Amino acid sequence: MITRNDCEKMDATDPMAAVRDLFTLPEGEIYLDGNSLGALPKAAPARIAKAVEQEWGVDLIRSWGKAEWFTMPERLGDRLGRLIGAAEGQIVVCDSTSINIYKALHAAMAARPDRKVIVSETASFPTDLYMIEGALAGQGKAYSSRLLGRDGDDIAELIDGDVAAVLLSNVDYKTGALHDMERITKLAHDAGAMVIWDLCHSAGVIPMELDRIGADFAVGCTYKYLNAGPGAPAFIYVATRHQEGTTQPLSGWWGHAAPFAFETGYRPTSGIRRFLCGTQPILSMTGVETALDVFDTFDIKDARTKSQKLTGLFMDLVAQSEICNVLRPISPREDAIRGSQVSYAFKNGYPVVKAMIEKGVVGDFRAPDVMRFGFAPCYLRYVDVFDAVAALEDALTREVWNIAKYCEMEAVT
Amino acid sequence: MITRNDCEKMDATDPMAAVRDLFTLPEGEIYLDGNSLGALPKAAPARIAKAVEQEWGVDLIRSWGKAEWFTMPERLGDRLGRLIGAAEGQIVVCDSTSINIYKALHAAMAARPDRKVIVSETASFPTDLYMIEGALAGQGKAYSSRLLGRDGDDIAELIDGDVAAVLLSNVDYKTGALHDMERITKLAHDAGAMVIWDLCHSAGVIPMELDRIGADFAVGCTYKYLNAGPGAPAFIYVATRHQEGTTQPLSGWWGHAAPFAFETGYRPTSGIRRFLCGTQPILSMTGVETALDVFDTFDIKDARTKSQKLTGLFMDLVAQSEICNVLRPISPREDAIRGSQVSYAFKNGYPVVKAMIEKGVVGDFRAPDVMRFGFAPCYLRYVDVFDAVAALEDALTREVWNIAKYCEMEAVT
Repeated sequence: MITRNDCEKMDATDPMAAVRDLFTLPEGEIYLDGNSLGALPKAAPARIAKAVEQEWGVDLIRSWGKAEWFTMPERLGDRLGRLIGAAEGQIVVCDSTSINIYKALHAAMAARPDRKVIVSETASFPTDLYMIEGALAGQGKAYSSRLLGRDGDDIAELIDGDVAAVLLSNVDYKTGALHDMERITKLAHDAGAMVIWDLCHSAGVIPMELDRIGADFAVGCTYKYLNAGPGAPAFIYVATRHQEGTTQPLSGWWGHAAPFAFETGYRPTSGIRRFLCGTQPILSMTGVETALDVFDTFDIKDARTKSQKLTGLFMDLVAQSEICNVLRPISPREDAIRGSQVSYAFKNGYPVVKAMIEKGVVGDFRAPDVMRFGFAPCYLRYVDVFDAVAALEDALTREVWNIAKYCEMEAVT
Repeated sequence: MITRNDCEKMDATDPMAAVRDLFTLPEGEIYLDGNSLGALPKAAPARIAKAVEQEWGVDLIRSWGKAEWFTMPERLGDRLGRLIGAAEGQIVVCDSTSINIYKALHAAMAARPDRKVIVSETASFPTDLYMIEGALAGQGKAYSSRLLGRDGDDIAELIDGDVAAVLLSNVDYKTGALHDMERITKLAHDAGAMVIWDLCHSAGVIPMELDRIGADFAVGCTYKYLNAGPGAPAFIYVATRHQEGTTQPLSGWWGHAAPFAFETGYRPTSGIRRFLCGTQPILSMTGVETALDVFDTFDIKDARTKSQKLTGLFMDLVAQSEICNVLRPISPREDAIRGSQVSYAFKNGYPVVKAMIEKGVVGDFRAPDVMRFGFAPCYLRYVDVFDAVAALEDALTREVWNIAKYCEMEAVT
């Protein structure tokens, strides 16, 4: 049996322990929703206030140069690249994930004009599928998508010579299961297709090697494990080898070779900035800056190790409790193929998650039956995991008792 | 001769005078660049700090409901609508102007599938033209654009039965000249075309009547005369009558009928939210909220009146000075057809604008030869106009002297 004391010992030797002090956390709460909105870095309020009061309020228009607002997309992109295995000059922080997916899809389709199929999967976060629909609708009826089903199907069977691009999340947002990025990238390339990775649920918590595995495009948000603040700008990675050859239809002035020459015709700039479109939200962008400062203080590999331990501990604690009899784990038990979340299927999960939140343990529920708990290694402790499972036990026991009582009443009447 | 004393008297009776107190302005400066980046409302730092520290830091994920983050796009859109003559339910605040242009162009083209021409003008802010290029490139070679030339051409000659949409700025960003929105909207409709108005240089300073004139679409930014902060989200207006019938290709999950049901297929929601795509930058969006609070304190018509007086005064003061002999005014002198800026062509304008900035009078220069001065009625005084012209006189006199000296030296050598 794992005890709370065991967890305290793990915290005492945790190399990531000091990172927690860089965050402001809501008092008396265990926040297991960092996979949806990451917590507030302590440095963020002052840095954002500076952007508001000094850069906007005093320096005004001069801040485009003086505060380097205009180059934030690529400066922050380069810093973010270190976390996902991308050399400089391949990432811009901008717009939303959905919009960046649209750019990547178009760039991939333009690079493979004779191919008319996009491969994805039904388990994708839905906006990925919706953006495929929107992008394909504009291409006429010749284009179509193929979606991998949920259970046990092999993506390899969907990728052939008709496929222009494969768009997948490397972490399933519901189950936390990982795709093998290297294998799938190779499968796509062997078939002559491009691959677009959606890193929303992995950037900042899983070290990746985009360059080494030869990824073509990647997108992701910054407000989950990267902790950049609500709706902070997303990012897009385009491998250097594709930048000059490809185009994207959101050809706004920020992607122009001479944005302040006010030419009437569009001439894409060289390099990754051609994946920019319009003016970026600077205050929200400043959140990305303070978020990345936190990631300068530790090795992303240590975050991954801790994340695996936290999620593994959660599963072990559930397994040693009676509640394991009613919960169906839907996250992989094997560390290597699990992201930083643990999910359980339970039909009446919604009131359980709600009851836990009322007790200060914040997870979330995803229809129809998924209780989802995210473990941000930057600010969660092992004792938090212990206490969270205790809260889950408590809420679930009451809920199971309620269900039993209800069934009995049904039977009596 | 208009004296500084005359200007002081105008300030003393200015019904907008109190609005200036709602802004933090850089000390010792006259800021004539509010047409590029508006000044900081005094309430903004505390409101944005609350969004950072309480809504993000403490309430975290709950703020999507509790702080009503999720409905900000349409709530702020409705408030903005009061300034541009739009009834509720027709505007969302989101993304960038460029991206919203893309949505509007596609929606207009989808609604007019047999028409293959987009009309705009070379004097457009370039991103409008670049977005037309991007949108048309995706439509295949059948599509083309027709651009109105700069001088004296009539837009009426370009609009015929082949035209799907007319995309124009109602204020020319260089000259400040106004288009007749009502006339052009009617011209477009008479030819069966849609009209898309770009309101970047007018929203917040010129009262408009989008509904009354029957505008189809409009877009604009919030960081110029609306003072919402650097790169704050833009807006898109779609007339109610078009919302159900039209689609746009950036079909992300925020535009879905059931965004939290996580369906695999895209079903656009009813109403204006179908023009949303992905998650919005909440901190920058909060800037829009405090910006609109300012506009609740006065009548937009008073802003227009003051704007006409400020810009007219600037032109009169230049006209009564010797500098009028070397400056070529390119903004209309007639109040009714002039936006809130005054521009002069002067070949060596760049060092003049630079010298003025060094003296604390901030205007800007747009290649090749345009000195541009914006007059934000919310926070500028009539004495500021007087002092700005004095600074212009001073800088220009020195520059003209420099040129003369240089020419003389050239002649001697």
